[in-house]
Amino acid sequence: MINKQLLEPESIVVIGGSNNCHKPGGAVVRNLLSGGYKGTLRIVNPKEDEVQGIKAFHDVEELPQTDLAILVVAAKFCPEYVEFLAKEKQTRAFIIISAGFGEETKEGAVLEQQVLDTCERYGCALIGPNCIGLLTRWHHSVFTKPIPNLNPKGVDFISGSGATAVFILESAVTKGLPFNSVWSVGNGRQIGIESVLEYMDEHFDPEKDSMVKLLYVENISEPDKLLKHATSLIRKGCRIAAIKAGSSESGSRAASSHTGAIASSDSAVEALFRKAGIVRCFSRDELTTVGCIFTLPRFTGKNVAIVTHAGGPGVMLTDALSKGGMNVPPISGKDADELKEQLFPGSSVANPIDILATGTPEHLGIAIDYCEKKFDNIDAIMVIFGTPGLVQLYEAYDVLHKKMLECKKPIFPILPSVVTAGPEVSEFLQHGHVNFSDEVVLATALAQIMKTPAPADQTIITDGVDVSRIRRIIDGIGESGYIAPKLVNELLESAGIPTVPEFVSSKKEEVVAFAEKCGYPVVVKVVGPVHKSDVGGVVLNVGTSEHLAREFDRMMQITDATAVMVQKMIKGTELFIGAKYEPRFGHVVLCGLGGIFVEVLKDVSSGLAPLSYAEAENMISSLRGYKIIKGTRGQKGLNEKKYAEIIVRLSTLLRHATEIKEMDINPLLADENDVIAVDARILVEK
Amino acid sequence: MINKQLLEPESIVVIGGSNNCHKPGGAVVRNLLSGGYKGTLRIVNPKEDEVQGIKAFHDVEELPQTDLAILVVAAKFCPEYVEFLAKEKQTRAFIIISAGFGEETKEGAVLEQQVLDTCERYGCALIGPNCIGLLTRWHHSVFTKPIPNLNPKGVDFISGSGATAVFILESAVTKGLPFNSVWSVGNGRQIGIESVLEYMDEHFDPEKDSMVKLLYVENISEPDKLLKHATSLIRKGCRIAAIKAGSSESGSRAASSHTGAIASSDSAVEALFRKAGIVRCFSRDELTTVGCIFTLPRFTGKNVAIVTHAGGPGVMLTDALSKGGMNVPPISGKDADELKEQLFPGSSVANPIDILATGTPEHLGIAIDYCEKKFDNIDAIMVIFGTPGLVQLYEAYDVLHKKMLECKKPIFPILPSVVTAGPEVSEFLQHGHVNFSDEVVLATALAQIMKTPAPADQTIITDGVDVSRIRRIIDGIGESGYIAPKLVNELLESAGIPTVPEFVSSKKEEVVAFAEKCGYPVVVKVVGPVHKSDVGGVVLNVGTSEHLAREFDRMMQITDATAVMVQKMIKGTELFIGAKYEPRFGHVVLCGLGGIFVEVLKDVSSGLAPLSYAEAENMISSLRGYKIIKGTRGQKGLNEKKYAEIIVRLSTLLRHATEIKEMDINPLLADENDVIAVDARILVEK
Repeated sequence: MINKQLLEPESIVVIGGSNNCHKPGGAVVRNLLSGGYKGTLRIVNPKEDEVQGIKAFHDVEELPQTDLAILVVAAKFCPEYVEFLAKEKQTRAFIIISAGFGEETKEGAVLEQQVLDTCERYGCALIGPNCIGLLTRWHHSVFTKPIPNLNPKGVDFISGSGATAVFILESAVTKGLPFNSVWSVGNGRQIGIESVLEYMDEHFDPEKDSMVKLLYVENISEPDKLLKHATSLIRKGCRIAAIKAGSSESGSRAASSHTGAIASSDSAVEALFRKAGIVRCFSRDELTTVGCIFTLPRFTGKNVAIVTHAGGPGVMLTDALSKGGMNVPPISGKDADELKEQLFPGSSVANPIDILATGTPEHLGIAIDYCEKKFDNIDAIMVIFGTPGLVQLYEAYDVLHKKMLECKKPIFPILPSVVTAGPEVSEFLQHGHVNFSDEVVLATALAQIMKTPAPADQTIITDGVDVSRIRRIIDGIGESGYIAPKLVNELLESAGIPTVPEFVSSKKEEVVAFAEKCGYPVVVKVVGPVHKSDVGGVVLNVGTSEHLAREFDRMMQITDATAVMVQKMIKGTELFIGAKYEPRFGHVVLCGLGGIFVEVLKDVSSGLAPLSYAEAENMISSLRGYKIIKGTRGQKGLNEKKYAEIIVRLSTLLRHATEIKEMDINPLLADENDVIAVDARILVEK
Repeated sequence: MINKQLLEPESIVVIGGSNNCHKPGGAVVRNLLSGGYKGTLRIVNPKEDEVQGIKAFHDVEELPQTDLAILVVAAKFCPEYVEFLAKEKQTRAFIIISAGFGEETKEGAVLEQQVLDTCERYGCALIGPNCIGLLTRWHHSVFTKPIPNLNPKGVDFISGSGATAVFILESAVTKGLPFNSVWSVGNGRQIGIESVLEYMDEHFDPEKDSMVKLLYVENISEPDKLLKHATSLIRKGCRIAAIKAGSSESGSRAASSHTGAIASSDSAVEALFRKAGIVRCFSRDELTTVGCIFTLPRFTGKNVAIVTHAGGPGVMLTDALSKGGMNVPPISGKDADELKEQLFPGSSVANPIDILATGTPEHLGIAIDYCEKKFDNIDAIMVIFGTPGLVQLYEAYDVLHKKMLECKKPIFPILPSVVTAGPEVSEFLQHGHVNFSDEVVLATALAQIMKTPAPADQTIITDGVDVSRIRRIIDGIGESGYIAPKLVNELLESAGIPTVPEFVSSKKEEVVAFAEKCGYPVVVKVVGPVHKSDVGGVVLNVGTSEHLAREFDRMMQITDATAVMVQKMIKGTELFIGAKYEPRFGHVVLCGLGGIFVEVLKDVSSGLAPLSYAEAENMISSLRGYKIIKGTRGQKGLNEKKYAEIIVRLSTLLRHATEIKEMDINPLLADENDVIAVDARILVEK
């Protein structure tokens, strides 16, 4: 429970504050002092009379009432201090920096539970234990360096790991990325990453709050909460990017050994982030680059003008933007000619706009003005401006600074000369700007942003889905395992998913009678074995009753065969839908073209149930083989709308049947009119 | 022609040297002086008596004999100076920094030709014009900053763009990458990038020379030379990485407008680099990261141990290494237990080896020692060591420094605290080490290196290829265009590529007679139209003479139809081979699975003719759909060896028939025994 005492404490006490700044207890006091904390700062230290110029209390008993306590003492002392301060000193917020709790030992977990219980009882906020603290513009309650540039337009950064937070700050500081707050949640059992987002969402003030949130997550313990508040914040205009570490199998192993995190399956994370509209990053460098982009005006559209005085980086940037799905469109016409006349002879305005190595700050300003005001096909401007060391760049960077304030189109500053023009770049950053020192790193991060969709609509679509019938079927299933084909068909029917006419029996006469009724040719499949094709249990195109009878006899001899299924044979292109239940996340739904596309090429898209029509359409169109669904080389396309509808309906079914742990519909057969489920398997766990 | 006067001049004159270090003429003198040039430095400046403490000559006539002249005067004066100095002063090397030559105007091109002619006549080396100069340990003949750390173990860097070279140096300097030399070739008509590599190859001294070459290339004017000398240097133990800017279509447009470079098609570049074993990079940051990796002992194997005192970066690094095809294998057993006992309680040795935030320099040393000496399944060690600012890291980095000197396994230092531990990181770099400040950037660059194959064997394989017959056929072709099916078949036969029995005629009786002879079913195709399928010009599975006669009549009615082809119908999986001639590069050969794999998924691999067996096998196995060729889910694989053989033979054919501009063999039909070409088109330009 985040409260005023945590965010804006009138008084802070550091329990274990010391004079030794090489220890956390000393470093946190130093940071609070150098951060200009305006309230009353108190120290408790039994051995010192004065700590860094502040009178020290020898005992907590001597303390006056204090809003926030920062604990930097051994874990075993913490429960008692928390109890005493909450009870006697009206302390309503705690930051416990100390480690040695649940992350280390069972005894530590007991201590942590005691602290938690006390905080809950008295309504106290609890950050940590096992964290670097909380850094806001109000108070610098962290023991670590670096302290980044803090301002209200900076980003809010929430981290599940203190050490990683520190290293992310290192990467941010060199780029000039400003911060509004840094939250290190440590073990985070009261205030985890999700709770911080919840608070920011529920107390959101568009006038005062930061619009950018960066997250470093090792374990998503409350996916629903994350989804809800990330979506809500993004809908309110915020932008969120996150690293979820542990995406590979060995990565997950590392995550488990780190803080006892239970690794979430990565496809569920991927699907959750996409559903929420969170930009996923994979490195510190990428996260801070995305953060820098988020501090600029929003880049809508795809067309970039590059203004540069060096050709090479302009070419590399053009390559990288194109690779990321953006354009560097040609610029020409009257306005372009006019611009060219104002630059040195030999300049190019075709885009990249190359004002030449000798181009002046004035030229830079003119080129930017033309991109802002005259070139309507331009949505954003990227300026590459460094120096070979002949002249200082103060004037050029001053032009850039002013244009960034003036222009409506976002301007991305790429200032490569971080050593030779170190002081000039520093001054530029001190105006509150960021710097992308490598153009390709910028373009790659921008592509990552562009490909992240807007938050999905979270209404559950029940059109055509008979939820109560689904529940009746599921409730009626007695035991765990793959359910009978008849029930599979009933479930699909309940969700309005068309299936092919079929009939299952262990009696030859019945099978033949059904085939004669529905008409030949038919498909014959064995019932029982899981991998039917591998055991010769599927025969297509059976055209006569005699042939059917022969296949029936043969199939009933296959090991595990319990019956034979006969289906009307239909034609079409194979599609696939699958789903897997991930604990806490819900069902990850996969779709793709069938056959080799799924089995060899792993060409599948994923989404998290329940899905909206827009999400399903997005899943379909992001397949590598999408052209086949669209229709290619004179072939008609498939009914994409129906395919999307089936995906949506299935996701609704799954949302109401969490007992389903795994399922495949493989194949569905599709043509320009219909999409029909031909075979499906459903695994239920009761 | 690179010579001793250029590399190790006893005397240098700067024509246009000045006191104004904000101009190139002043800056180059300053750099020569601060670079401690040990020979005689002379200046020519008509208006000054002394330049930066050196007596200035007012006129070139007054000069004594001088080895190397650096020209920093207007283009129009250059030809005369070069002529005079070469003739009268025995000057045998020129660095022309000035711009205003062929890159700008036609008049400039004339001046450039004059300079070039003079240099050729007198046997002079010529760097430039339009460059930043040449930077070696002998002399700092550049006008730019930054000047990187120079030492004989540093890298040789050759750049086709001066401004880009400067920005690449900025990126290198922050990583601590040392240089042996920096070549900015400018317009490079005498000494281009390829010539510098040629010189380095032909004069290679394994004792003295740098083993690492980095290239920034905008235009590959002599691909054969680049291939030859890059391959040769790599075979001698060198490592080469390069950026070729202009890979996208808009990127190529930018390259053209930059220095009038003729853009090479990117797939030819890709194939050339892979053939030579050059690691391709796409950004300044990536090139310098790869350069840093190259300064470390070679990483053979795939298994990495991560030693860290912060979990998060270890997890991200594990993720990124796995994504790049490397492993972070579990570490366990007796030795692991022994290591764990020597670390603080709570440490993890499972890999990542987490010595905890409180881990000491001694712990770091012990963990590295175990990875070096005890853990046999480890090939390389990555150390992540930063600080939250409590203690200084000198001692830890000293341990790291010593272990890097001692250990045989490569150790990659990842020191993230570049701000907070700025002085400690600087000291570490001053020992000659590099620093990877972001673990994921390192892993990504390493993956780029790992996926680059060794240089290909360049013997042209003529087994089974009848080169003289190929030349006879090609020479016999009278005009440009798609050649007749009969000739196509003869060409394939001459290269030993099996084709399906077929027959072409505009006479119905002949067509039917052939079909009856080779046996039904047959395939019937129209001859004439290019996209046969689109006009209904292909019919499979024709089983009788009556049916064949009907199809013959129908097809002869199709627009552009000149005849009908009948082929024995064979079955198999569709494969594809294609080729395109790129001026200067030769033929780019593509291979892949046929049908949708080529048309929808663009799943093709490419290589540059002539190809070796190893290259062809590599092309095949790097297809996304390779599993289908290998055989999947109980299906037999295809004859991969024959497919590779056909690719190799075709590449040999192409090497001897550069008149072929484009060709497809589509499809080839393959099963476990045979690969047979079914249809092919060849476009010849005479």
